[in-house]
Parts: sequence; structure tokens; C-alpha cells
Amino acid sequence: MSEFRLRTLELIDAGRQLYQMGLVPATSGNLSARMSDGTLAVTVSGRHKGKLCEDDIMQVTATGQSLDDRRPSAECLLHVQIYNRIPDARVVLHPHSINATLLSRLRDGALVLQDYELLKAFPGIDTHHCEVRVPIFNNCQDIAHLAAEVDAGLSGKEPGYLIRGHGFYTWGNTVEDALRHVEAFEFLFECEMRLTGLKQ
Amino acid sequence: MSEFRLRTLELIDAGRQLYQMGLVPATSGNLSARMSDGTLAVTVSGRHKGKLCEDDIMQVTATGQSLDDRRPSAECLLHVQIYNRIPDARVVLHPHSINATLLSRLRDGALVLQDYELLKAFPGIDTHHCEVRVPIFNNCQDIAHLAAEVDAGLSGKEPGYLIRGHGFYTWGNTVEDALRHVEAFEFLFECEMRLTGLKQ
Amino acid sequence: MSEFRLRTLELIDAGRQLYQMGLVPATSGNLSARMSDGTLAVTVSGRHKGKLCEDDIMQVTATGQSLDDRRPSAECLLHVQIYNRIPDARVVLHPHSINATLLSRLRDGALVLQDYELLKAFPGIDTHHCEVRVPIFNNCQDIAHLAAEVDAGLSGKEPGYLIRGHGFYTWGNTVEDALRHVEAFEFLFECEMRLTGLKQ
Amino acid sequence: MSEFRLRTLELIDAGRQLYQMGLVPATSGNLSARMSDGTLAVTVSGRHKGKLCEDDIMQVTATGQSLDDRRPSAECLLHVQIYNRIPDARVVLHPHSINATLLSRLRDGALVLQDYELLKAFPGIDTHHCEVRVPIFNNCQDIAHLAAEVDAGLSGKEPGYLIRGHGFYTWGNTVEDALRHVEAFEFLFECEMRLTGLKQ
Repeated sequence: MSEFRLRTLELIDAGRQLYQMGLVPATSGNLSARMSDGTLAVTVSGRHKGKLCEDDIMQVTATGQSLDDRRPSAECLLHVQIYNRIPDARVVLHPHSINATLLSRLRDGALVLQDYELLKAFPGIDTHHCEVRVPIFNNCQDIAHLAAEVDAGLSGKEPGYLIRGHGFYTWGNTVEDALRHVEAFEFLFECEMRLTGLKQ
Repeated sequence: MSEFRLRTLELIDAGRQLYQMGLVPATSGNLSARMSDGTLAVTVSGRHKGKLCEDDIMQVTATGQSLDDRRPSAECLLHVQIYNRIPDARVVLHPHSINATLLSRLRDGALVLQDYELLKAFPGIDTHHCEVRVPIFNNCQDIAHLAAEVDAGLSGKEPGYLIRGHGFYTWGNTVEDALRHVEAFEFLFECEMRLTGLKQ
Repeated sequence: MSEFRLRTLELIDAGRQLYQMGLVPATSGNLSARMSDGTLAVTVSGRHKGKLCEDDIMQVTATGQSLDDRRPSAECLLHVQIYNRIPDARVVLHPHSINATLLSRLRDGALVLQDYELLKAFPGIDTHHCEVRVPIFNNCQDIAHLAAEVDAGLSGKEPGYLIRGHGFYTWGNTVEDALRHVEAFEFLFECEMRLTGLKQ
Repeated sequence: MSEFRLRTLELIDAGRQLYQMGLVPATSGNLSARMSDGTLAVTVSGRHKGKLCEDDIMQVTATGQSLDDRRPSAECLLHVQIYNRIPDARVVLHPHSINATLLSRLRDGALVLQDYELLKAFPGIDTHHCEVRVPIFNNCQDIAHLAAEVDAGLSGKEPGYLIRGHGFYTWGNTVEDALRHVEAFEFLFECEMRLTGLKQ
């Protein structure tokens, strides 16, 4: 099987799993994988990420230029920025979750996570006794501008980031790694939302 | 396959999806599609919308008159009003959700949604930086009266509306469009409910 | 197929549906059906209601006496009381839900439901503009005593009742009717719980 | 089938059920079974507990020493402590749930559960009118130290315990017993979290 087809099937299955978790409602969210030649497999714009078929994944250059006549997901440049910035990232997932949407509106600048055992699901973290800072960027429809803001605001050590009122981005070396980060983030976001409610 | 049978199968599948999302509990909610001759395929009164079979979808005239001896869903006239008012509407879905039931009781006149990226799931919206006004109508068992209230209160630009303590109506040119609007509304309703809780 | 086997298969499927809704955790809850000769098909004590097999349903007399050497669910006498009191009841379901457990601890005497369209899912109700009173009985391990309390406290018009910290009972002429009442109650209980949270 | 393979298949299915309940996100949680010769079948470190295959369960000695070249789950010594302390325990499950994570951060010393009918799901409890004390231990990455803390803090009568910001441990004589305790704990934790929210 071609590398493109293999990545395509992985992304279709990842989308199905994200949808079952309620993380890609309507046609929100987008998914991509970096191939060995540097090109990307990415979702076609406007498709339902929970019900993807092979025709819904397209190939773009390392800079996000379409290699056929179709248009990739609007946020394709955000995927490109991550691949450029994080050498180990070979899969990028952008879930559009309720918890991420709300927390990114309720917090300023960053969400700080600490004293959760599940933080160990993120790379390089081996104790709950630490602080993980998840940057929050203001939403913007000019994706090139937003990508530049993200590039300036990322330290490169974060396991992901939030876009205000929009959702979050996370990545991994494999689709399993990226999905593990999604599950960990959603768990932690839900914990933070509930604690915020109790702090009223 | 006849157009009626095709629409029927689409509505059966849509009902199943709505039920899995918890949006048509008991025998609540109703679904319809407009056919090319102007007649409607609509759910028969009292059937469980999550477990529809072909016999649970019937045909009515453009004004909602039964074309056989069965009775359509009580709110059939609300579907008729939408088809008359919105030329592009070819599928109308009425989910009966907890979030819609509560928000419609907690807000006056209308629910205003803004700064959500997911608003772009609605037709004609290309930025989160906008205001979407979802009218709320008082519930009434006189459906002809309620339909007139809705007709007077709709601008025709809204992607849907709420009925107090009852649920919401949304529509689309295809069943996929209408389901996308349902998923977007539910996501946004849940966000608004949680923010309302935090504002206490 | 014998009437007992038919009822057994219906109860197995009802238990599976209740479990998927999260309403019979651990081995809680119980289910029964009244047969044409007045005897009851009821769950055997201690079985997991979401994973019932034919061997988990037994036959008891109209007064709850085992017709074999097994013991029926502890609350069997509560089912007997309902069948004696409500002539139309042919299926009784006792889900053990979080919402019912909490509301029954938070309210005194009764839970009053009004202005919900979904109230129409209950027999004899044709408008949201009404009051449905759901009695709450104190929990008690002496089931004969509890059954007498219920019998004294029921008007016979309610679609169900709550036991404090325990769950709820509802019934119907068919398993579909009883399950419709379960779905309606859970929806309304969840609405009431969320409104209670907002009223803080 | 060998006893090890039988236990392995039971743990694979238990992990799948826990994942469907949302109790083992990312690669959190761990599961084990004690065999008749005293050795343990336990999950291999870092595997996704909701998607286990036979290769993800390994055999360790009664003291937790690997019997092959693989490493068991980090918390293996906590399983060993339970098997040493609780003679009847033949299956130990460690779900990593949101409710357990939050309650263990919100309560001091112990979570006290009372007046819930579902408490009867735990061994030796035959009435809701009692108090079940669930100890809370501070999280610690030194598992030998944590195991000693747990051993000192357990009375041996509890159906399980919490680790702060981490999750909970429960056990049973069979996998069905242990899963029943998980379902009961999660139900009760959710009840306590919601009541805590209302008490604000």
C-alpha cells in the first residue's frame, strides 16, 4: 500500500474516533499526516471529519499548496507551521471540543495544568508534580496571520495549544501518539472546566 | 428507487443519528423532506424517531394534508411554514434536546450566539466575529397559531429557532446540511448552558 | 414462542437499552412483565440488568412467590404493588439513575414537573401547560413496608415515582410504553437537575 | 485454555468496557488478575487499556517481578499490595476517571459515602443507611513508597481507595465483581461531584 493511502486510512480512522468522542461536530476540525517526502496528507475543506472516505483526504506540499484542484482544510497553514516547528511531529490533529472552546474563552494567555497524573501522557513529563502551560491564541480568520502568531508564541515544548472559541491543536510522531494527546487534553480540559464551575 | 423512498431512508437514518446524540428521547421530535413535486415526506405521529421503519414515514401535501389515512407528526404545520418561507429548505429537523429545552426557558426573546468558530457551520457565515440571533417562540398546543407566530417572527436569515421548553427547528438543502446544523446548534447550546452556569 | 419466553426476550432487550443509557449500573435496577395468567416474569436477584440472558429472568406468582428455587430481585414486591394498583400496567421498569438518585435527595415529598413539552410523553397529558407530581418515598430495606408506603402515597394517576437515594419506578402497557416513560423521565430529571444547579 | 490466557482475555474485555465508560483515557489505568499459583497477569507498561491485545498482558511474580523482558504497568506494586492485603482479591482494576481525579483533589483524607442504595453493590453492605469511607492517598511517583502508605492506611474493609489527582483502585474475587465495583464507584463519585457543585 502507498504511504499516502496508509496515512489516509489512519486519518479516516482517527476522524471516526474523534467524532465518537464528540470532538469534531458538524464539519469542524481537521487532520493531517507528514509523509517521508515532506508532503502532507490533509483533510479536504468542508468534509465531515467523523465520516471521512478516501476521497476526503488530499495531498499538499510542505508549504500547503494543493497538489490537485481541491482545497485543503482552511487551517492547513497551521498544520504546516507545526510540522516546520516540531521535527518529531508526523501527525497533527485539530479537534473542535466544547471544553477547549470554553476554556480558551475563560482563561487569559494560557491554560496552566498541574498535579494531574495524566500529564504524564505528554512527552517528556514523568511526574504529576509539574506545570504544563498550554498557550491560548486569539482566533483569527486570516490563517497566515494566526500561524505567525502561533509560531511566535510557541516554545516548542508544549504538547498542544488552544485557539480562542475554536478548539485545540496537538500532534505526535504517530497517529496513536496524537490520539493519546487528544484523550489526555480532553480529560484535563473537562477537569479544569468542572473545577472552574466549583470555584464560582 | 422512488424519490419518496429515497427521502424516507434518509430520514430513517437521520432519526437514528439524532437518537444516538440523545436529541429525540421518548417519541419526541419530528423530521421531514420536501420532494420535487412539493409534497412532503414526514414522520407519522407518535413513532419513535430513533427507531423509524419505512412505515413510519408518510406523504402529505405542501399544506400538510395527509395523502393516506394516517396522521403526520403534530408539528407538521411548522415544517410547512419553513418550506413556504425558506425556498432552499428541502429537509427540516426538529430535535427535542435538553440544552434547547433549558436555554429556551432561560433566555427571553432570542438566544444570541457570538465569537464561536463553529458559527461558520451555518450558511452565509464566514467569521466567528459576528452575532447569530436564534429567535425563541412561546410553546403553544395550537400549531396553526404557533406557525403564524413563527412566520411573523422569522427574518428568514436564521439557521433555526427555539420553542420554549420544547426544542429547536433547523433545516438545510440536504439531510447532511440539516444534520450539520443540528450538530452545530447542540454544540453551541451546550457551550451557552455551561457559560450560564458559570455566570451564577 | 411461549408468552414467558417472549416477555423474557423483551426484558433482556429493555435491560440492554437501560444499561446503554447508564440507568442500571453495577447490578442495580430491576424489570418485570405481567403475563395473561397474572404471573410475573421478573429479573433474578443480583444479575447485571444490562447483560441479561434468558436464565436471568424467572417466573413468580401475582403476589411475588417464586415458582422455582431462585430468588427474584429484592424489590419484587414493589412490582407486585404496581400491578395490583394499576390495571393497565403490564411492564414495570426500575432504573437506578444518577439524576433520580440526586433529585430524590434534593426535593421533599414530590418532584413537580411543569411547562415541558415532553410531559406529553406520559399517558393522559396533552399539553405542556400542566403540573405532573412525582411522589418521593423514603428509602427502606423492608420492602413490604416500602410497598405499603407507596400504595398509600400513590394517587394512581402518576406515570412513576421516586425512592430517595435509590432510583425511580415507571410502567406501561407494553415494554415500548415503559421505555418511553423512562426516556421522558430521564430527560426531565436532567433538566430539573441543571436548573437546580443554576438556581444556586 | 491456560489460566493465564483465560485471565488475559478477561482483562482485555474489562479494559474495553472501562474505555467505553471513559475510565482509561490515553494510556492511563491498569488491570491485573491473580492466578492460582500466586503469579499475576498484568498490563504491560504504556499500552492503551481500551485497545489491549493478548501481547499487552504479561506475567509477573507475586512480588511484581517480570517473568519476561517486558516492564509491567508502573503501578504494579499497588496491585501486589492489594493481593497481599486482601486474600479474596483475584482481580484488581485501576480506572483513571475524571470524577475520581477531581474528588480526590477536593476532599481531605477520605471520601465518605452514605444514604445511597447503590452502596449495596459493595461486599458486606446490605443497607443504604451506612457510611462507606474511601481513603484518599497523596499521589507519589515512588510507587514502593505509595504502596507502603496505602498498606498503612487501609483497614482492609474498604471496597477501594483514591489516589489524589490520579484515579481509584478497586478489586473483586472475579472480573465481574471488580467491574461491578467500578460501576458503583463511578456512579457514586458522579453523585458526589454534582452535590459538591450544588453546595457552592
